[in-house]
Order: sequence, then C-alpha cells, then structure tokens
Amino acid sequence: MAITLAACTRRAFAGILVLLWVAASAIAGLPNDPLPSWNDGPAKAAIIAFVEKVTSAGPDFVPEPERIAVFDNDGTLWPENPMPFQAAYVFDEIKRRLPNEPALQADPMVQALLAGDMGKLMEGAHHDGLMHIIALTHAGMTTEEFAASIAAWIETAKHPRFQRRYDELTYQPMQEVLGYLRANGFKTFIVSGGGADFMRVWSERVYGIPPDQVVGTTARVRYELRDTGPVLVKSMDQLFIDDKAGKPAGIHQFIGRRPIAVFGNSDGDKEMLEYVTIANPHPSLGVIIRHTDGEREYQYDVNPKSSGTLVEALKDAPQRGWIVVSMKDDWKLMFAP
Amino acid sequence: MAITLAACTRRAFAGILVLLWVAASAIAGLPNDPLPSWNDGPAKAAIIAFVEKVTSAGPDFVPEPERIAVFDNDGTLWPENPMPFQAAYVFDEIKRRLPNEPALQADPMVQALLAGDMGKLMEGAHHDGLMHIIALTHAGMTTEEFAASIAAWIETAKHPRFQRRYDELTYQPMQEVLGYLRANGFKTFIVSGGGADFMRVWSERVYGIPPDQVVGTTARVRYELRDTGPVLVKSMDQLFIDDKAGKPAGIHQFIGRRPIAVFGNSDGDKEMLEYVTIANPHPSLGVIIRHTDGEREYQYDVNPKSSGTLVEALKDAPQRGWIVVSMKDDWKLMFAP
Repeated sequence: MAITLAACTRRAFAGILVLLWVAASAIAGLPNDPLPSWNDGPAKAAIIAFVEKVTSAGPDFVPEPERIAVFDNDGTLWPENPMPFQAAYVFDEIKRRLPNEPALQADPMVQALLAGDMGKLMEGAHHDGLMHIIALTHAGMTTEEFAASIAAWIETAKHPRFQRRYDELTYQPMQEVLGYLRANGFKTFIVSGGGADFMRVWSERVYGIPPDQVVGTTARVRYELRDTGPVLVKSMDQLFIDDKAGKPAGIHQFIGRRPIAVFGNSDGDKEMLEYVTIANPHPSLGVIIRHTDGEREYQYDVNPKSSGTLVEALKDAPQRGWIVVSMKDDWKLMFAP
Repeated sequence: MAITLAACTRRAFAGILVLLWVAASAIAGLPNDPLPSWNDGPAKAAIIAFVEKVTSAGPDFVPEPERIAVFDNDGTLWPENPMPFQAAYVFDEIKRRLPNEPALQADPMVQALLAGDMGKLMEGAHHDGLMHIIALTHAGMTTEEFAASIAAWIETAKHPRFQRRYDELTYQPMQEVLGYLRANGFKTFIVSGGGADFMRVWSERVYGIPPDQVVGTTARVRYELRDTGPVLVKSMDQLFIDDKAGKPAGIHQFIGRRPIAVFGNSDGDKEMLEYVTIANPHPSLGVIIRHTDGEREYQYDVNPKSSGTLVEALKDAPQRGWIVVSMKDDWKLMFAP
C-alpha cells in the first residue's frame, strides 16, 4: 500500500509538472512586447514604466476604477490631413446633395466652400460662414438620419493620398496603446474637438471605445414623439466645443473623474495635458505625438497655419514632464497593413 | 502494476467526484432568487423574464454592449420626500454658511427660503429666486470644493423622518435590480434631474455606478490653471436640465446609444420611457415605480402638487406595456436594515 501511494504521489507530481509546463508555455507564447509597433526608446519605455507602476502594489498603485485614460482623436489616433476627416465628410456630403437641392446650389457659403474660398467662410468673430456650412450638414435631421449618413460615407469614402477608407487609417501604434491600457484595467475615452455624434458611429468598431466613452463637440438635440416613434432632432443650440480649455471642462462634464493618462498632439490638447498631469494626487502620464514623418504620414506640427499646430504645448513639455513621441523615430509603422 | 494503476484511477475518480460535489454545492449555495426583496408577482416576473429573454440565444438576444439600462434617481432609487435630497443639501448648506456670511443674511431670497416662502422663490417664468439660491450653493466654487462640501454633508446629515444618513435610504429592491442587471452584462446608468456633480460624489460607493455613468443636470465649468494646479470653476451657464424631454436628449448626449431598459417614477420620466420602449429595434422594458406605501415610505404619486407627480405616464402605461410596480405590494422591504 505504501508503494502504491508513493506511485500515486509520483504520478500526481508528474501531472502537476506537466500542467505547470503547459501554463509556462502559454505565458511564453504571449507577446512579451505590449507595444510591438513601437521602436525601443525613451517614449515606449516611459509608457510601459507608467503602466507597470500604477498597476503594481506599492505607493503608486491606482485602483482600477480610477485608471482613466483620455485620447485626442484627430492627429492622435488617426490623421488630420489634408483636412480633419469630419471636414472631408462635410465636403463630400455637400457635393452629394448638391444636384438635388437648388437651395444649396444658390447658397453663397456653399459656393465659397466649393470654390475653396476658406477666407470667406472664416469671416466674422464666430466664423458665420463655416458655422452655416456645419449647420447644413449637422443639424435639422434626426440623430438616426445623421448616423446613417456617416455610416454610409465611411463605408465608401477614400482618403485622397492613401486611397484607403478613413477608418483604415488609425495609427497602429496607438491602437496598441489603447489595447495595452485596457488589458491593464484602464477605461479608455476619446476627448476630441470632433463631433461626438460623428465619432460614435464607428468608435466602438474601430477603436473598441463604446459611444458613452466618446467626449466630443456637442449641441442640443430636441426630443419629438412622431407617428413612427421617438426621434431626437439635431440642432446647433448650446454648442459645446470640446477643444482647448473646453477639453478639461468636457472631461469633467462627461467623465466626472480626473484621468491619469492623456495623449494629444496639438495646442488644442494643452489644457487637457495640464489638467491630467499637474498636481494630480495620482501618478500621471502626459504624451504628445509629434507629426515628424512626411514620408509615411505628414510633417506639420510646428506650422502655425496647420489645423494641428503644436507650439505652446511643446514648449511646456520639458517642465511638465510630458513624453514627446516622434512618429518618425518612435513608430515602426503607421497604419495596420 | 495493473493493480497500482487501477488504484490510482479509482483515487483520481474519487477526487473528481469530490470536486464535482464541491462545485455543485457552491452553485446550490447561490441564491436562486435574483430579486429576494421583491414579492412574487407580475412585476418581478416581468423583470426576470425580460432579462432572461435578452440574454438567451434566440431572436430576442441583445449583445452585451447594447444592454444599457437607465434609472431615474429621486423617487426611483431613493426617496424624494419630504423634499429631493439635493434640496435638503441646499437648505443645510445655506444654514451652515449663514452665521459667517452677512451677505447671505441680507439676501431677500435667502430670507424667503428660510421663511419657507416658496411662492416668492418660484415667481417669474424662470423661477429667478430659486435659481439664485441654487447658484449660491452650486456655482462660483471649484468642482473639488463642491464635491468636498457634498461629501461632508452626506457623512453627517440625517433624513428628518427616518433619522438615517441619506445614502442609507436607497431602496433595497432597486439595489437588487441594479446588481441583477449588471450580473447579466448590462451597463447601468443614472439619468436624473438631479445635479450630475451632486450625484457623482457618492454614486459609485452607494450604487456601484461610476461617475461617467451618471447623467444629470449640468452647467458649464470654466478651466483655470492656478498656482496650486488646474481647477474647474462651476457656473450656471448653458444650464442643461435633465428632466422630461431633456432625459432622452441627455441619454443621447452622454450615453450615445438607445437603452433597452428604463426605470422611473414620475411624469418627468415619461419621455425617457417612450424613448426606450417605443419602436426600439431591440426588446425593451419600461418600469414605473409607484409610491403607494405611506407606512414604510410615502404615498403621493398621483398628487399633482408633489414633486414626483405621476399622472400622464401612468395613463399611458397600459398602451405602452410599461410595468407598474407598487412599493406596498411588490416590495418586501424598503431600505436595507
């Protein structure tokens, strides 16, 4: 009996060893590198060190519900050239509707837009011409009609340079950051100057970010109970522009909790970078993505005429401890193949 | 050797049986009833049937990301008598500050409030007196100062009738609904006329609902970078009142997706009940909580002078298929002991 028991114990022990080996192999089979599209360097190291710090036991540990990370969209998660993609939608939508809508053809601001006369659209303190064009394409319809229009556009429209669908042009290295943070208990939010209703149509499919985690520019919608059912009609009233000082305000209003990580690429993100990283009771990470790669993408960030000017935030970066990423040097590739 | 192997096999088999027995016991030890504080009846049965329907394979299955449930707060998750608890905060806060603030003492609207002259506060199309009182206690300070004030109040204030902290007065049956839905892959949101900044201070601790899942009345905050760090200063600008037709608007603006379940208790929830349940492409559940128990809580819901009047929504309930819950008949207990 003693021999039998010993045999059993040996077998059991061997079984446990096999299980351990299988488990170890499975772990070894996982990618060791959470950011495979990033070149090794200080930026990548800083992101990984931050995540390891706030998720490890110790004085810098941050409980999961407070692991909030916010991402600008245009220029941070996907390009913003030759124009922000939402502006491309506006152009395409006006052109699509033009043949059937004489009122549009006669509209002086539509004519200015089609003639490329941006000066005329930007006239006045409130850029009345531009706001008029935005209202034509973003107000007066139901939220469902607008979402259907965006969905149809993104299925078919192509980026003029890359000749790919716009939603195929997200930055692969940033997709990896989103996934890496989520795998470590972070909740990821978009905080963008783009329209919330524009982004929410595809944010979950493209970034894994559900609609309620998209903070963007919004205006009031008006509830109506029609014969066909309830609808919400889009308006331009109480417009909230989620840019510059609006970004920390939007974070408070929609998220209601101070994030501990922030990724941006322009001066429009400066206030949000400050809000996350200055005097935060938790450890925090601020990252600026620099558009330094004219070959694979665009090189424009310190051009004061570009829509994504990066001057003030870059000047503050050293004293604030913000990590500066160079697309050219830090990223192995731009878009998923 | 054959005997040894057989012995091992028997032992292994016995071990497996023990494991199965442990597992079965653990399952049997779980409560079979997901809503133990609800009396058996049509309301409880309808809630459970709905959850089982949308989570089971079949034509009525709803994928997890689309399982959004929205809850009114005052009168649905906790009482709203003798006044909404946020109004109790306003009273207590004015009284707390009064001895040290001569300007408050001289304020005619503060005097009207303390004299109980609600008529004076409600004068004018925009209830200027009431808005002035709300501004005194909800604007001009930073969001952190406001949150600290709410946190301190809720730690100490007592409900005048129940003599318990306000956050100990959540309805136990509704806490069970929140937990039951979340255990079935639902994301639970508050959609309340109360202030978002007021509720977010305690919603996660009290309901397990994080700040970004609280939709409420909001106004703009103004970003400032001070010597001590960044702050957001509360204002009354661009006030958004999350009540009546504002509720579906708030759901769209903050959640960005149509819910499939809604719980409310007053005519202020009628539009949100419609928005969730009429012509929804998914199966949907609309529930009205009726305040029918004057002994254990308050009996007031069809009183047109109460703050939680329920007349129009109740009239529509049969044709809309909304489930009507009677606190007196459907709930075994009101608050957790």
